[in-house]
Amino acid sequence: MTVGAGGKTSADADPLMLVRAIADADRRAAHALNLVPSENRISPLASLPLASDFYNRYFFNTDGDPLFWEFRGGEDIAHIEALGAAALRRMASARYCNVRPISGMSAMILTVAALSPPGSTVVSVDQNSGGHYATPALLGRLGRRSRLLNCKDGEVDESELAEVLAPGDVALVYVDVQNCVRVPDFRRMSDVIREVSPGTRLYVDASHYLGLVLGGLLANPLDCGADAFGGSTHKSFPGPHKGVIFTNAEDVDESLRSAQFDLVSSHHFAETLALSLAALEVEDRMGDYARATNDNARRLAGALADAGFRVYGDSATGYTDTHQVWVELDGVAAAYALSNRLAEGGIRVNLQSSMPGMSGVHLRLGSNEVTFEGAGPQAIEELAGALVTARERALGPRTVHEIRGRFGAPFYTDPEKLKVEAGL
Amino acid sequence: MTVGAGGKTSADADPLMLVRAIADADRRAAHALNLVPSENRISPLASLPLASDFYNRYFFNTDGDPLFWEFRGGEDIAHIEALGAAALRRMASARYCNVRPISGMSAMILTVAALSPPGSTVVSVDQNSGGHYATPALLGRLGRRSRLLNCKDGEVDESELAEVLAPGDVALVYVDVQNCVRVPDFRRMSDVIREVSPGTRLYVDASHYLGLVLGGLLANPLDCGADAFGGSTHKSFPGPHKGVIFTNAEDVDESLRSAQFDLVSSHHFAETLALSLAALEVEDRMGDYARATNDNARRLAGALADAGFRVYGDSATGYTDTHQVWVELDGVAAAYALSNRLAEGGIRVNLQSSMPGMSGVHLRLGSNEVTFEGAGPQAIEELAGALVTARERALGPRTVHEIRGRFGAPFYTDPEKLKVEAGL
Repeated sequence: MTVGAGGKTSADADPLMLVRAIADADRRAAHALNLVPSENRISPLASLPLASDFYNRYFFNTDGDPLFWEFRGGEDIAHIEALGAAALRRMASARYCNVRPISGMSAMILTVAALSPPGSTVVSVDQNSGGHYATPALLGRLGRRSRLLNCKDGEVDESELAEVLAPGDVALVYVDVQNCVRVPDFRRMSDVIREVSPGTRLYVDASHYLGLVLGGLLANPLDCGADAFGGSTHKSFPGPHKGVIFTNAEDVDESLRSAQFDLVSSHHFAETLALSLAALEVEDRMGDYARATNDNARRLAGALADAGFRVYGDSATGYTDTHQVWVELDGVAAAYALSNRLAEGGIRVNLQSSMPGMSGVHLRLGSNEVTFEGAGPQAIEELAGALVTARERALGPRTVHEIRGRFGAPFYTDPEKLKVEAGL
Repeated sequence: MTVGAGGKTSADADPLMLVRAIADADRRAAHALNLVPSENRISPLASLPLASDFYNRYFFNTDGDPLFWEFRGGEDIAHIEALGAAALRRMASARYCNVRPISGMSAMILTVAALSPPGSTVVSVDQNSGGHYATPALLGRLGRRSRLLNCKDGEVDESELAEVLAPGDVALVYVDVQNCVRVPDFRRMSDVIREVSPGTRLYVDASHYLGLVLGGLLANPLDCGADAFGGSTHKSFPGPHKGVIFTNAEDVDESLRSAQFDLVSSHHFAETLALSLAALEVEDRMGDYARATNDNARRLAGALADAGFRVYGDSATGYTDTHQVWVELDGVAAAYALSNRLAEGGIRVNLQSSMPGMSGVHLRLGSNEVTFEGAGPQAIEELAGALVTARERALGPRTVHEIRGRFGAPFYTDPEKLKVEAGL
């Protein structure tokens, strides 16, 4: 393709042709099985606001104040943001829920801004033990000092934590573990913080395992002494690309609201409606979904290990407490050959090169999306079989179709029912 | 409605019923005429990716590197982001275009992080002369010192600018004028900066008038000595809720890329595709659209002034150089009565209480969306007539329908043509 630096658009950049290419790729995507732990597939119901006019609009008047309709159009649906936030609060057993961040990183920036002053020190988890790649650099850019903590396999060394807190300048411990099959013991961390540095805030960025916390499968950070927790809403929680922050403390909620006012203007109204619908739709089954997600992750890990893959962890502990399964591969060429064969066959895996305790290019798999779509034990066994096959050769043209044939009911509203009952 | 703090969802929060309410509100929104300068209506073509599976996906491999498909699914459309960025670069006559910010505020955070170190001073424009409400507080939260500059009616006092620069600690002048009918003279600002403080960067946050710059109607900040400019892409530019930053300087582009890596993870792929399509779709007519937008704003201002509204500015200078028209009203009660009557009749206006040089609650109108939809002189006259009517009484039930009947061709692809030619 050629696109001139100036002048007219080339034929290859005809938007009608590009739309056709997107539609073609979208049709393929509809059938693909995604094993990417940081992605999920928003439900047909929850996705409806994204294609509505509300995508184009600002919305500030959450409380429906008759003298605050500076921006109009949301009058008849103003209550939906609050209903969704209430559903999220119920799932998180939290008094306060802030749904204004527009992404997981937006939630991170907002939390750092709200809970640590410029010039203070923020402790986060070393990337080599599962911390988010961006946190230390982000802290530096925001004028905070970064100090790192190790968290090997979910274990925080209490004396190391006491040591990083000792200088007395730590405003916030930001637990940003994202790559984990074991979640840290927040209670132990909280106990050390309360003893050594009682003024230090504890925040848990649960982006990856948020759905497992909201489903009651993993410990709720608020019950373990954290001041707040939150993260992105599109990984193990099946929502749109947004962020959410929970707390039980009124002053923390106030600090978050104040920071949000300064750092978020439009909170992406259509996506906030989508988050509300996603929360209300899944609420009654969130526990089942979380349970099934981890069951499927363990089954996938076990089946892959049985077939000779080098899976992180061991069978005695079920390999994983989350939706993630990590698999070592034999070098870059083999990794890409496997990923390419799978992608051609309609199975999309996530290659990574920086997981703690892993070497080379490896697989970071997630059971969250296929579980949301209805994958049960048999589908997972066959999915593992497809990964085994793809080590050697291309998948058969009907492999994905057959695996999908094993799926049970999804954790979302059937699109046909949606059409009939919602009058669409 | 009642929603229990715990336990089951109430009937009022049934997601199927909420979807029905959203669909009903959306049908009304489809016909409404929006006169909100900070909003636009994304075209039917550009909105298509928002409802696609790409909404759910991460995408990093802009260059299509065969060994960088860590996240899969975008292989066949990877080039569209680059094609869109090229179209934006052509419109901005810029060498570099960063399309990774996920909103206007995201672009602001990224620019501040990239172009000023923590602890340095950033100069922005006082809200009382049109600056963005959030900038000074945002700078404080990011560990920068904020210093304000006045910019009355687009005029920057050169000696005042020299004075704020004099201490020698200003890393960045961030021109965040959003509420303006006159755009500042960037060349004069740049000349003062180069003379008094040559190391200081000049950035223009053109969020509101971006479309008018890209259409060649307003001076291009890069031609006037600015190091970079950008902003949100859904106001006078008819795109999705995203952000964009342009520069001609390789080192500035590098700084932005580096900050983006630390501050943005997912750049909202579906919305980036939407931005590409919006840019490619409007490129050939961007000049005409910008011209028509300002023509319509001037016509609207004139018609309202002729009918006795107190319009900011004067007829000798055409009231406005942008898409904005400001109108004083007679107190809060009258303002809401007017806004409510208009909203009930299908015309949505924007009430504000903090425009420079205005008192009380007033109208901040924008011609950008109705112009994008095809409003010409006659439609604008009738729209002004509807505002005049609504001062006294309710609009007739067919008013909006009749105004829409005067519209010419929109600046976007006809939805029927889209259906046929794109095979949808």
